[in-house]
Amino acid sequence: MAYLTRYDVTQEQNLAAALRRNTTNGSEVGERVRSILEAVKREGDTALLRFALQFDRVALQGLRVSEEEFAEAEKLVSPTLKAALAEASCNIRIFHQAQLPQGEQVDVAPGIALSRKVVPINRVGLYIPGGTAPLFSTVLMLGIPAQVAGCPSVVLTTPPDREGNVHPAILYAAKLCSITEVYKVGGAQAIAALAYGTQTIKAVDKIFGPGNQYVTEAKKQVSSECCAIDMPAGPSEVMVVANPFSNPAFVASDLLSQAEHGSDSQAMLVVNAKREEGFAYLDRVEEELSTQLAKLGRQNFMISSLSSSRAFVCPDLERCATLVNAYAPEHLIINLGDEEDEKLASQVVNAGSLFLGPYSCETAGDYASGTNHTLPTNGWARSYSGVSTDSFVKKITIQKLSREGLDRLSPTLLAMAEEEQLSAHRNAVAIRLGGER
Amino acid sequence: MAYLTRYDVTQEQNLAAALRRNTTNGSEVGERVRSILEAVKREGDTALLRFALQFDRVALQGLRVSEEEFAEAEKLVSPTLKAALAEASCNIRIFHQAQLPQGEQVDVAPGIALSRKVVPINRVGLYIPGGTAPLFSTVLMLGIPAQVAGCPSVVLTTPPDREGNVHPAILYAAKLCSITEVYKVGGAQAIAALAYGTQTIKAVDKIFGPGNQYVTEAKKQVSSECCAIDMPAGPSEVMVVANPFSNPAFVASDLLSQAEHGSDSQAMLVVNAKREEGFAYLDRVEEELSTQLAKLGRQNFMISSLSSSRAFVCPDLERCATLVNAYAPEHLIINLGDEEDEKLASQVVNAGSLFLGPYSCETAGDYASGTNHTLPTNGWARSYSGVSTDSFVKKITIQKLSREGLDRLSPTLLAMAEEEQLSAHRNAVAIRLGGER
Repeated sequence: MAYLTRYDVTQEQNLAAALRRNTTNGSEVGERVRSILEAVKREGDTALLRFALQFDRVALQGLRVSEEEFAEAEKLVSPTLKAALAEASCNIRIFHQAQLPQGEQVDVAPGIALSRKVVPINRVGLYIPGGTAPLFSTVLMLGIPAQVAGCPSVVLTTPPDREGNVHPAILYAAKLCSITEVYKVGGAQAIAALAYGTQTIKAVDKIFGPGNQYVTEAKKQVSSECCAIDMPAGPSEVMVVANPFSNPAFVASDLLSQAEHGSDSQAMLVVNAKREEGFAYLDRVEEELSTQLAKLGRQNFMISSLSSSRAFVCPDLERCATLVNAYAPEHLIINLGDEEDEKLASQVVNAGSLFLGPYSCETAGDYASGTNHTLPTNGWARSYSGVSTDSFVKKITIQKLSREGLDRLSPTLLAMAEEEQLSAHRNAVAIRLGGER
Repeated sequence: MAYLTRYDVTQEQNLAAALRRNTTNGSEVGERVRSILEAVKREGDTALLRFALQFDRVALQGLRVSEEEFAEAEKLVSPTLKAALAEASCNIRIFHQAQLPQGEQVDVAPGIALSRKVVPINRVGLYIPGGTAPLFSTVLMLGIPAQVAGCPSVVLTTPPDREGNVHPAILYAAKLCSITEVYKVGGAQAIAALAYGTQTIKAVDKIFGPGNQYVTEAKKQVSSECCAIDMPAGPSEVMVVANPFSNPAFVASDLLSQAEHGSDSQAMLVVNAKREEGFAYLDRVEEELSTQLAKLGRQNFMISSLSSSRAFVCPDLERCATLVNAYAPEHLIINLGDEEDEKLASQVVNAGSLFLGPYSCETAGDYASGTNHTLPTNGWARSYSGVSTDSFVKKITIQKLSREGLDRLSPTLLAMAEEEQLSAHRNAVAIRLGGER
């Protein structure tokens, strides 16, 4: 049995259909989320506590994680994990520090001084999902750039478990990013609390972080109302570009590690080879998939995810690039040999993050190499970048004109205001230069 | 009669209410826009032509502006306006070129090479409203950064007049930015065409530009579905910070040039003075408002807009800063004297664009000094920057690990994957290092 549906790119009539994502969105999600948002807006903390009882099955004593809980968490995290988080933090910090944008200063003409100043967003909210796997790595991926950007106020919310606790690794990771304001709130109600504020939780200016379809829908709804968000969300995905010289075990392991994220994850494989050769190589990858899958956990997720995965055989590199740019993958692993890797990479314009060569597995970027793992999915890589230090700052333009500068610019300003029929715009210039009112 | 409602900041109980914007959103707009989007998605060009007949009252022969029309437009633009557009373009280009982001390259550890490459968004759509005043300045403000960023494909849409023509200054400005693909489509249907594509108009990756409430609603709807937008929109606004030494004629002219934008524009004045002094100064500003208003066009807009404008008297600079940051104005004019201007400016964190000193009128930034006039309104300056060259590029992260690099990182990766219970993530590392499968 083959896991991947195969396409010969030279034969396929409808590549667009083959590249389609399997996303569906229930319209009833929108309504349910709207009512949750309304409830939090109306009732504040009361609604949060009620939803904790309803969704998280826990009667919370308080919403905020206490200092004692932080101290306790520190004891519960193993030295091995602590060392790992330290190394990951270090790499993430170095790369995100290099990203810190600088302002500019330009005198475009005598007396016309322009500049931009970079200002951190005042208060940001990080959402960390609960569920089967505690995503403490996401705490680092959002908390470190917020800290590097210098955001004065950073708050984290995450759903509590049935005992009302937050996973210790999440608290420990938060502390590594100097985050001390953590609330036990999950789901759409957490997004509502961050966007509108409650008695306990002060509203934020921008919300970051992944989540299930309710969280995603809530972020979408508040983003057009009052609170910015990092980016639109969708299921995670990878595209791997290989050729018959690529180690099939490595390729299979990359497809599986993507498939493991969830049953709606998509793993796409592009084999740069002629048809016969490519199909023969796919057989070897399939064999590896079977062997490796048998030894791993979360098999249900993986099998379900692989059922919507596809393999494309493509004889030339240019068409590989076209395929990649048309799909605009969140993660793109290119494993063709040094020279070809660089060649293809230089032609890629639509992708969230690139992984070059046989040793750059997605796991490295997901956790600890230093790149951010919050990336545009669902084709949004056509227009969005992944989360970076940029995401936590704003740039404010500043201008200062001297009388001489305004004088010099005035014929242009008067002519344009005239033509756009904005007489008060004209007046604001004329009156300053002692002209007619 | 006073135009501005007055508040003494030291006495006012509810400053938040006084800083509230007068935005209302009809819910029927959402439904009407949804049906327009659906029609364009279903019928393509046919729907565009039908809506042109219905909304623009013109039976179009074709959607695309022809080369002849461009040539004709060039003849119709006056030499004075051509010179003005040339100077404005030059300044805008210089400032936006200085903004072009660079990538970074960092080896965070031996064998772990990280970088970001800057890539222009492949195809962008610029929307230019029609209506009473032809906004050719907006063509420059969007077209030049797109060109500086290197976007391979830039398309402009704008509603035709009743003769089926586009204003010559808009076409001339488009040509200055090397835009040759211009369509006679306005309103929500233009946004639909840009987002979904039609037989004639190829879909874009990101939509920029201002518009009425239908355009704004359409941008909002497509932005959560398939196409990025520049930013959420709202009515234009200014906050002017002055003191009794500021020329009241200049201050009044700034409030009026904002009020002229539309009846929903908001002009706010903050006077840094003690109560008595401040109120006396406001009397002088009111007098200037009357005198200047009487000599200007668009008086209805201005009077209606000023009715929701407010003046705050505030004795200390710190509270002025608090007021500014709470309102987060699109435009902020600070006119207090050199030293105080700088002092306040350094404390401002929420604003779209700053104008410092008596000669930096909003008109300069609206047209020609070089800063961008597409700025966050309605409080979005808390989290958004104005449009800049940044808005037209994406940044793609790239990583290349050597075997040594992965080896070095592996204890960290394995520990984190283990703790997040992602065995396939673990496997992708282990298999590369010849470990257990």
